[in-house]
Amino acid sequence: MIKKPMLLACAAVFAALPLSAEDAKPEYPSPPEIVAKAKAEEWVAIAPSDLLVMDLAPDAKGNSRRVVIQLMPPPFSQGWIGNIRKLAAAKWWDGTAVVRVQDNYVTQWGDPTEKKALPEGLANVSEADYVYPKSLARPRALDGLFVPPNEVSRWTSFHQGFPVAGVGTPDSERNWPTHCYGMVGVGRNLSPDTGTGAELYTVIGHAPRHLDRNIALVGRVIEGIEHLSSLPRGTGPLGFYEKEEERVPINSVRLGNEIADLPAFEYLSTESASFAAYADARANRRDPFFITPAGGADICNIPIPVRRKA
Amino acid sequence: MIKKPMLLACAAVFAALPLSAEDAKPEYPSPPEIVAKAKAEEWVAIAPSDLLVMDLAPDAKGNSRRVVIQLMPPPFSQGWIGNIRKLAAAKWWDGTAVVRVQDNYVTQWGDPTEKKALPEGLANVSEADYVYPKSLARPRALDGLFVPPNEVSRWTSFHQGFPVAGVGTPDSERNWPTHCYGMVGVGRNLSPDTGTGAELYTVIGHAPRHLDRNIALVGRVIEGIEHLSSLPRGTGPLGFYEKEEERVPINSVRLGNEIADLPAFEYLSTESASFAAYADARANRRDPFFITPAGGADICNIPIPVRRKA
Repeated sequence: MIKKPMLLACAAVFAALPLSAEDAKPEYPSPPEIVAKAKAEEWVAIAPSDLLVMDLAPDAKGNSRRVVIQLMPPPFSQGWIGNIRKLAAAKWWDGTAVVRVQDNYVTQWGDPTEKKALPEGLANVSEADYVYPKSLARPRALDGLFVPPNEVSRWTSFHQGFPVAGVGTPDSERNWPTHCYGMVGVGRNLSPDTGTGAELYTVIGHAPRHLDRNIALVGRVIEGIEHLSSLPRGTGPLGFYEKEEERVPINSVRLGNEIADLPAFEYLSTESASFAAYADARANRRDPFFITPAGGADICNIPIPVRRKA
Repeated sequence: MIKKPMLLACAAVFAALPLSAEDAKPEYPSPPEIVAKAKAEEWVAIAPSDLLVMDLAPDAKGNSRRVVIQLMPPPFSQGWIGNIRKLAAAKWWDGTAVVRVQDNYVTQWGDPTEKKALPEGLANVSEADYVYPKSLARPRALDGLFVPPNEVSRWTSFHQGFPVAGVGTPDSERNWPTHCYGMVGVGRNLSPDTGTGAELYTVIGHAPRHLDRNIALVGRVIEGIEHLSSLPRGTGPLGFYEKEEERVPINSVRLGNEIADLPAFEYLSTESASFAAYADARANRRDPFFITPAGGADICNIPIPVRRKA
C-alpha cells in the first residue's frame, strides 16, 4: 500500500513512489524507475557552452534562483542562438527583468525599457529558419507511441534530446521543434520581424503548439523552471506586470562555460533503449497505480529526462 | 504595429492585442475577439449550486485568494460530486490545506493529518464510473478541428462546456472527461480505491492525459487558478510540501449558493456558432501575428471561455 493514503500517487520523472515492505514487487517499472536504471553510456553530456545560466535576484526569503537552459543543437535556430551567445558575452541581460507571466502560457524576460542598445553584429534571421527544410534522423522505434499517430507524411519525434515535429515526403521533409512545457523561444514583433533573441520566454502551461513554425525556439529549461513557473501572474494585458516593482530582476545571464561552480548535466539519449522503454511506459502506464493505459502520449507528455551528472 | 515591440504577442482568451490607430483592420479576428462578439444567448449561466468556492488564507501581502470551481454536469462523476457537496455542507475542508504542488503536474489539497473524520453517508464510487458507458451528444461541427483527428471509433470533443474523449462504435460508445489544464480530480489510493472527493487536485501543467480513465474528474477551475498554479513548488517526493509551514491553509470551501457576494458566471456554449468559430481560430490562427496556421488543435488547447456575467 502507498504510505500516504488518499493522495494522488502519480509519476514524477525522478521520484519513484515509496512502497512499503509487504508490497509485491510491481510487474512493470514506472517511467522514473526505468530512467533510474538506464546505463551510464545512455546518458549524453551537455557541453557547458551549450547552457545559458540565468540568475534571478534572490526571492523574498533570500533564496537564490538559478535557471539553466540548454540551447538547441544544430540544425535548429542557430542564427538566433548565435545572437544569444553574443548577448550573454556582452552581459546584455544583466539588469533586465522578467516582465510577463501569463497563466497557462508563458513567462517572458528582457529589457523592460525597450531602449537598451543591443550589441553590434546580431544577425537578422529569416522566417525561413523557423523550419529545417531537410530530413532529420529520428528514433523510429518510438514511432508507434505518439498521439497523434505518426504517418509517412506527418510525425512527431525527438532529435538529439529535443521534441520535434515534421511533415513531407522523404525528398521534401520539413522539421521543426515543438512548443512543449519548458521550451524557450524568441519574442518578436509582427512578421517579417523574427526577434533577435534578446527577448525570451518559456512555456509554463499546456503546450501552445500553434506557436510552432511561427516563433523561433532556441532551447529548454533543464533546471530551475520553478523559478519562472511559480512567479505571480501579471495582471496587465497578456500577463505583463503592470508595476515596475512586480518585475523580477535578472542579476546575470552567462554561458555555462563561464560559470565556475556549475554542475555537469546530461540527458537520456532519445536514441537509447532506456529512453524507448521510458517513452513506452509514459504512453502506456502499467505501473500499479494505473488501471487503463492510455495507449499513446503526445510529444509534450514525454519530457526528456535530464540530471546532474553524479 | 504592436505598441510593445520585441514582445511575444500572443492570444489571451480575454485580452485582445492593442493595435494602434494606423493599423489596417485585421482580416481575421483573434480567438478573444470572436469571444468578445459572441451573442448574449450563446452564453450559458452556471448555477451557483454547481460552483465550489475555496478561500485560501490571504497571501503574504494580505490579498485574498479565492478559487472558483465549476462541478461537472451529469452524466460524469456524479457519485464523487455528491460526496463533494456533502463535504462542503459539513464544512469539512475548513482548516485543511494545500499539501502538494508538483511543477508541470498538479496542485493538491486536503487534510494533511489524514486523520480527520469524514462526514457520514459518503458514497463508495466504483471504478466503472470513470467512464460514461453510453453515447453522448457532441457538436459535430468541431469534428474537423482536433489533433489527433476525430475518427468514427475515437474522438475528442466537448459536452456541456467540458472537454471529453470517447471511443467505440455507435452502439458501444464510451466517453470520459479529459485531464486538461485547470481540471479538478479526486486523489485516491491504489485500485480498487477510487477516493471519496475529500482529497482534490488541479492540473497546473501540460495535460496529463494518462490519468484519463484512471482517476475521477469532477470539475474545473474557472477563476483563481493562479492562486494554485503560482504557489511555490514542494520539494518533497511528488512535490509534497515537506514542512507544515509551507502548506497553504484553506479557510473555507462552500457551494456557490452559500456565498452571498459571489458573482454570476457563464460559459460560452460549446454548441454555439461563436464557440465553433473560436475553436476554429484556435486551431488555425490567422490573426496578424501568425504566419503558419497549425491546422488543428488538441482538445486541451481549446480552453472553454468563462466570464463573470455583466
